[in-house]
Amino acid sequence: GRKVLIVYAHQEPKSFNGSLKRVAVEELSKQGCSVTVSDLYAMQFEPRATRNDIVGCLHNSEEFNYGVETLKAYKRGGLSSDLIEEQKKVQEADLMIFQFPLYWFSMPAIMKGWMDRVLVQGFAHEFPNCYDFGLLKNKLALFSFTTGGSKEMYAKGSINGDIRYLLWPMQHGIMHFCGVKVLAPHICFAPEYVSEEKRKDMLIAWAQRLKTLWKEEPIICSPEWYFK
Amino acid sequence: GRKVLIVYAHQEPKSFNGSLKRVAVEELSKQGCSVTVSDLYAMQFEPRATRNDIVGCLHNSEEFNYGVETLKAYKRGGLSSDLIEEQKKVQEADLMIFQFPLYWFSMPAIMKGWMDRVLVQGFAHEFPNCYDFGLLKNKLALFSFTTGGSKEMYAKGSINGDIRYLLWPMQHGIMHFCGVKVLAPHICFAPEYVSEEKRKDMLIAWAQRLKTLWKEEPIICSPEWYFK
Repeated sequence: GRKVLIVYAHQEPKSFNGSLKRVAVEELSKQGCSVTVSDLYAMQFEPRATRNDIVGCLHNSEEFNYGVETLKAYKRGGLSSDLIEEQKKVQEADLMIFQFPLYWFSMPAIMKGWMDRVLVQGFAHEFPNCYDFGLLKNKLALFSFTTGGSKEMYAKGSINGDIRYLLWPMQHGIMHFCGVKVLAPHICFAPEYVSEEKRKDMLIAWAQRLKTLWKEEPIICSPEWYFK
Repeated sequence: GRKVLIVYAHQEPKSFNGSLKRVAVEELSKQGCSVTVSDLYAMQFEPRATRNDIVGCLHNSEEFNYGVETLKAYKRGGLSSDLIEEQKKVQEADLMIFQFPLYWFSMPAIMKGWMDRVLVQGFAHEFPNCYDFGLLKNKLALFSFTTGGSKEMYAKGSINGDIRYLLWPMQHGIMHFCGVKVLAPHICFAPEYVSEEKRKDMLIAWAQRLKTLWKEEPIICSPEWYFK
């Protein structure tokens, strides 16, 4: 069975994001996948990249350099236990689903902190092993998120611009950089402002998509996809 | 004298980001500006958007909704004291400078948390008061950051894409949304990989730019600036 890691960032289990997460766990489990959830708020996941991420002595304690120190610590097995735990989950996963409400055209800080701290050099990339040669190649990622604005507000020429513009840093800058192939995003527009029935339809549509997810081709993660 | 808020996110005072911050404090003070620094790591600033941001009872404790609760709390003066403190600094500022190392095509999580938590609805925006009508109009913002990659790697057609692509969520999605006018970003490419002399030149160039900063025109924050 395939392995899926769901990195989930919502404070409220009863939220629509919580429902989307549950639907994914149920549907993927039904398929025989083994599903792990990193429930970031429930874990009180630490988003700040600090000296605490390195156990024991620093390579250079005179001038702290997070990138250098985490690379060295990774190589000697000296990263903090919460990071090692998350890296194990990533290592085992065939697919990572990121489930979150869009905060300021991006992911909530708690999830950005997961990216900043878990995907360290040596583990996820190490020059020249980046982009198509990133260390997490052969894995898939999918960004599944909700918005405040409607689909129309995120159309090309609308005030928020094409929703794809804001996917560039997350899909290309993070996932593609680590060699991860990206499936089309799953976007639920403005669930807070639609009827209960529409919200149910959105959950059904997500479950439906997941049924045939493993047959999907990744997107071609180049500027054309985002900005054309 | 004008008021400047520098929101600064680096763990190490001796870092190049630390030097850029000091140069800005010195130069702007010399001009007679009153300069305030929010040193996020030193403050151990909380990046996570949680129930702790609301003092006292919730509007709906059955189903926690961060956006709704922070709006209500803002209106009744019930946000946590660290947020009120930061909002005061924003309110007083004519210019906000964001100084950080680029982490994953974006700002470090600790700074994203500052955006998520400080710029709440009611304070920074409140529909239809967004974009040109955002509640922080008549303020300026400037993103000043360092990169790991070289300028060539962030050129159009290069693997990282045009550096402007990744500025869209930060400059348009956050600052423009709040009505803040955006000055051209100040980017120091790959300071870790250039000579000490080049680094000194970069600091001098930043001080030079700050001398005439108040004469600069904001950018036209539309898709053309970012993606043309």
